[in-house]
Amino acid sequence: MSKETESKFSRQELDGRVEPDKVSEWYNRIIKEAGLVDQGPARGTIVLRPYGFALWKQVQKVLGLAIEGSGVQDVYFPAIIPEELLTREKEHMEGFVPQFFRVHDKNRVIGVLRPTSEAVMYPLFKKWVQSHRDLPLKVNQWCNVFRDELRPYAFMRTLEFLWQEGHCVYASAKENEEGVMNFLKMYESFFNNTLALAPILGKKSEKEKFPGAIYTTTGEALLPGGKALQVCTSHNLGTNFSQTYEIQFLGRDGKQQYPYQTSWGLSWRVIGAMLITHGDKKGLILPPEMAPVQIVIIPIKGTSDEEVIRRAKSIKDTLSDLGLRVEIDQTEERPGARYYYHEFRGVPLRIEIGARDIQNNQVITANRLTSEKSPLPLANIKEGVQNILTSIQKSLLEKARNFTQENTHDVESWEEFKKLINSKQPGFLRTYHCGERACEQQIQNETKATLRCIPFGYEKSEGVCIKCGKPSGYEQKLLFAKAY
Amino acid sequence: MSKETESKFSRQELDGRVEPDKVSEWYNRIIKEAGLVDQGPARGTIVLRPYGFALWKQVQKVLGLAIEGSGVQDVYFPAIIPEELLTREKEHMEGFVPQFFRVHDKNRVIGVLRPTSEAVMYPLFKKWVQSHRDLPLKVNQWCNVFRDELRPYAFMRTLEFLWQEGHCVYASAKENEEGVMNFLKMYESFFNNTLALAPILGKKSEKEKFPGAIYTTTGEALLPGGKALQVCTSHNLGTNFSQTYEIQFLGRDGKQQYPYQTSWGLSWRVIGAMLITHGDKKGLILPPEMAPVQIVIIPIKGTSDEEVIRRAKSIKDTLSDLGLRVEIDQTEERPGARYYYHEFRGVPLRIEIGARDIQNNQVITANRLTSEKSPLPLANIKEGVQNILTSIQKSLLEKARNFTQENTHDVESWEEFKKLINSKQPGFLRTYHCGERACEQQIQNETKATLRCIPFGYEKSEGVCIKCGKPSGYEQKLLFAKAY
Repeated sequence: MSKETESKFSRQELDGRVEPDKVSEWYNRIIKEAGLVDQGPARGTIVLRPYGFALWKQVQKVLGLAIEGSGVQDVYFPAIIPEELLTREKEHMEGFVPQFFRVHDKNRVIGVLRPTSEAVMYPLFKKWVQSHRDLPLKVNQWCNVFRDELRPYAFMRTLEFLWQEGHCVYASAKENEEGVMNFLKMYESFFNNTLALAPILGKKSEKEKFPGAIYTTTGEALLPGGKALQVCTSHNLGTNFSQTYEIQFLGRDGKQQYPYQTSWGLSWRVIGAMLITHGDKKGLILPPEMAPVQIVIIPIKGTSDEEVIRRAKSIKDTLSDLGLRVEIDQTEERPGARYYYHEFRGVPLRIEIGARDIQNNQVITANRLTSEKSPLPLANIKEGVQNILTSIQKSLLEKARNFTQENTHDVESWEEFKKLINSKQPGFLRTYHCGERACEQQIQNETKATLRCIPFGYEKSEGVCIKCGKPSGYEQKLLFAKAY
Repeated sequence: MSKETESKFSRQELDGRVEPDKVSEWYNRIIKEAGLVDQGPARGTIVLRPYGFALWKQVQKVLGLAIEGSGVQDVYFPAIIPEELLTREKEHMEGFVPQFFRVHDKNRVIGVLRPTSEAVMYPLFKKWVQSHRDLPLKVNQWCNVFRDELRPYAFMRTLEFLWQEGHCVYASAKENEEGVMNFLKMYESFFNNTLALAPILGKKSEKEKFPGAIYTTTGEALLPGGKALQVCTSHNLGTNFSQTYEIQFLGRDGKQQYPYQTSWGLSWRVIGAMLITHGDKKGLILPPEMAPVQIVIIPIKGTSDEEVIRRAKSIKDTLSDLGLRVEIDQTEERPGARYYYHEFRGVPLRIEIGARDIQNNQVITANRLTSEKSPLPLANIKEGVQNILTSIQKSLLEKARNFTQENTHDVESWEEFKKLINSKQPGFLRTYHCGERACEQQIQNETKATLRCIPFGYEKSEGVCIKCGKPSGYEQKLLFAKAY
């Protein structure tokens, strides 16, 4: 276990956290019981119910603003792609052909459902990009994509999923490289500030990169149970695709040239990562920045019902005016049942108000993360509520970061590697690799572990490959893990 | 021509309006040249470029708020539907089978691409609806749907299109009927207030109703060229689908019963209707409520460039603070070229500012609809600009309404019917019909005209069928037209 950071949450985690080997079972149960998703009628598909879709809407809203702020414009391209376009880029084709779905009309195949949209976008980019004045071209679309999956898993791997895919075209290699990193960093801010997740950023190996890319950058989140999930990618396509799809522009120098391209994407998978990371035995814990309901007010009925309701509504108005998402639960159930319901659904903050609280000019706040209950004077309600939400948001990120650090293990020998990867909560295994594809495949065959990424920001160091003992191929350590 | 209303726009229309027989050509050219759409690589598909997609985003934003305000929650259901679900409702199947696309994985057919989502949603509704306490269930989704089309036409008819589809389940027939009409009225407000369109609301005939519905209500817009387009629908499904998909609930009376259902939808087709209705020979005219850019500011360079730019930016800030969408065009082109460009793209209001205007503490406004140019004192800029935008929005609706009225013709004989329907701009033919499907089909076979709707709000009247002479089957007149 990495000793870099001592977590101040260890006690709590031991109390509330779901046991590593129960995480999958917990996740599958809770996403259904909390009314987020249901199974779709066709193989490997899911239905997002209102509470689940509200999470995706929030992703679209927050990330959408960041995308717009980067000067990228939204577009929509067709879901059906003529097959010859998709197979034109050889590597790209080999990566995706096994996952194709073909679309037939009454008489014949009319195309393939998009597994990603490079192949349908770039023939149009060829038309739109003629001169250096048309560059950079920066577009994005929010859409459904389709890839066959042998082991479907709600949000994480489904035959159809929702995502956004950004596609940029630049005149120079330098701008393009900057673009790749800027969009990756945009994702990182979104993970840190909104989803309260702390994925490790780095490059993919040649074996794991996007088919057709020069290189792929990725965010790898370590989830409870100690397995990794790729939560975003930003690819440097170089001129590979512009050459294949014959995109050329007239440069300032008067010469025809191939532009450089990036594509970058993030899917509803991030919702799965968020749910599984923050939840505990009592149910979901939603980061306040994501929660469809941030605050639920529970009027406790007493001798002065009307006054309690009136006060609850006034608090709701006060907090809504701050831009907070507030609900009053006026159902007839006893308070305990209502507490349980909203805790289970992950509402970050509960406010209880009864006749006695009115007398005392206060409410009772209950923090979903810490389970702390404490009185809050009405006079301080705005500040008090915002402080609690801010502290939950911050603590969730800190917990996620600590969990990743505590479960990142430096391994020195192949024996240790195998022992750890087969343990209950394997985590990230930090070590050296020779850089050869066959050796990487061998590790995967023997242990199911894949090379998740070559992290950015690691110091330069030399060592020998954990598997074959040849000299390291990367000038630094890198991370292996089992995939979700 | 109907004499009910004399249009005050007649002169202008004759000046700027595209000739009836040139409308299609004009439309096909302008949507490409204005950078709204491009042809997709697969048959019958289109690409929405940033300026075109911005229009759909605005539809989603404005209509989305109205949908949310009706207590409807957004969800997402899979695009792939097992075929046996889609063919379970017999009439529904017969309506859609010819337009199916089948999806194949490597080995077999895994389903059909949704032409609409009743068949994939209702098996889940069966799970979710158990008791009267689960009702009403009101959900909506924004998604892509797929229907084969013999004559694709940008926005109007494409193999894949974007839409929203709402689906509600109610305990009683009465609530359900109210739901059908409320959502139709929600659409009407959206057409009138946002798109500046004035579709005629009414019921579809048995022949033209949604496959499987008890009845279908519709909005029928009359477009330049005198053809009609169905721009929205709201269906009363009664218990037809709940019986087929075995949705049952335990009523207050303790008995199991079938709930009543509605579905209602509006697609990107409304963008086509809006563009074709308002444009003129100079290009697009976008209603201010829809325009991605409502105001373009053109700094006219003079002796005091910097001051002009500074002033333009300050005006932009002032207007942006009002929530208006403003752009400054600082390109190097001569003013005339910039005027032409933004006029062509339909920007409702242009503001010109030069050195002399600064001296006079004014700007020059140019109204895209009336072509009027006039000075506006800087002191009145907020009010002045808002007045112009409001008047354009209002005038466009009035024009659309007048066009519909002027092109609605009462016809008394089959000869007159045939003559009008074959004229350059046929319009709505208002007459009686016997109500028999075979006769309706006969009219369609002979003239290509279809029964667009039995309008709401027409007075009761009796007459004989325009085609066969039998007594009227509807107790009122109704509208025939050629379809777009």
